[in-house]
Amino acid sequence: MIAFEGGEGAGKSTQARLLAEALQARGLTVVITREPGGTAGAEAIRALLLHPPGDAGWTPHAEALLFAAARADHVAHLIRPALARGEWVICDRFVDSSRAYQGGAGGLGDAAVNALHAFGSDSLRPDRVILLEGDEDALAIRLAARGQAADAIEGRPAAYHRAVAAAFRAIAEADPQGFARIDAIGPPERVHARILDSLRDLLP
Amino acid sequence: MIAFEGGEGAGKSTQARLLAEALQARGLTVVITREPGGTAGAEAIRALLLHPPGDAGWTPHAEALLFAAARADHVAHLIRPALARGEWVICDRFVDSSRAYQGGAGGLGDAAVNALHAFGSDSLRPDRVILLEGDEDALAIRLAARGQAADAIEGRPAAYHRAVAAAFRAIAEADPQGFARIDAIGPPERVHARILDSLRDLLP
Repeated sequence: MIAFEGGEGAGKSTQARLLAEALQARGLTVVITREPGGTAGAEAIRALLLHPPGDAGWTPHAEALLFAAARADHVAHLIRPALARGEWVICDRFVDSSRAYQGGAGGLGDAAVNALHAFGSDSLRPDRVILLEGDEDALAIRLAARGQAADAIEGRPAAYHRAVAAAFRAIAEADPQGFARIDAIGPPERVHARILDSLRDLLP
Repeated sequence: MIAFEGGEGAGKSTQARLLAEALQARGLTVVITREPGGTAGAEAIRALLLHPPGDAGWTPHAEALLFAAARADHVAHLIRPALARGEWVICDRFVDSSRAYQGGAGGLGDAAVNALHAFGSDSLRPDRVILLEGDEDALAIRLAARGQAADAIEGRPAAYHRAVAAAFRAIAEADPQGFARIDAIGPPERVHARILDSLRDLLP
């Protein structure tokens, strides 16, 4: 299981797709998925997260519980069955997004987010997390080129997104075996080559 | 805050309404609400809980996280603001339903459900819980008169509902100050009189 992490606009979806194609070209069976979402239940929760019903928005605690619920469904109904069949799973965001966004930038704390992950998903960890990092100003430009913020999380202030990036760095630094920190600046094919290189020890 | 608890068909909704009318007749301002639900966000989660998207259904852990998320929204956006305004809140089901259904009958354990409630809602407790108890066969007949099971939880087997009733009893026995165990068999007006009597110490 390989998870892609990083802030908005870092190129996670593109790189997840390029990696899936590279693994398939080597004859591997690959399931490519994303969070929040990936299963019917989790996609329904995703819709509630990105477009909160009513005017009040979710509280940080309700939001963290919803992310954990979506992940529990995704892990139980898609990720663990695929891994059990011997397939490769590539996931665009996983629990480290909850740790960086809700735990770090959102102030809930890493222990609380990890406790929810232990309860919901028995603390499943990817075999490797690809953290896409870049010049935050360049990423902001790439994000702005998409136009208006697409949802309730992209639309948060720049300081929040800087806090997310700092939290990702701290999480990765605490687990150098589990994370590959990848320079996300440059043409997608060059970033892809860096990613493949960082996975040499895992690839057949 | 008064919460009504008990199994399906125990008369919680009817009794919550009768109590609200009695308190209003005494000049009190009453908010009557229900779980899961009560706010726009929590009602959206309720819809997902009672009618799971996809074929797989929620895992017990995902279900417990969703109940906790709905409750967190309900507490933050409706219950705590009403209590802060000095209003009375009457709630048809609250956290003890999660303890009895998911924690007890569902096997997740009381500690896990309480931990989710601590995280999501800072462990808010009603001032009194009215536990409606009755002859389980009589309640089964009342429930059957409604016709087909209305949702994913009502439709569970009888053994599950008996386990729920046993869990409610154990929870109430452990907190005799917090619970009033009310005989739910008989005409609604007689059950209502028993409830009012059990609340004498709280009523103005």
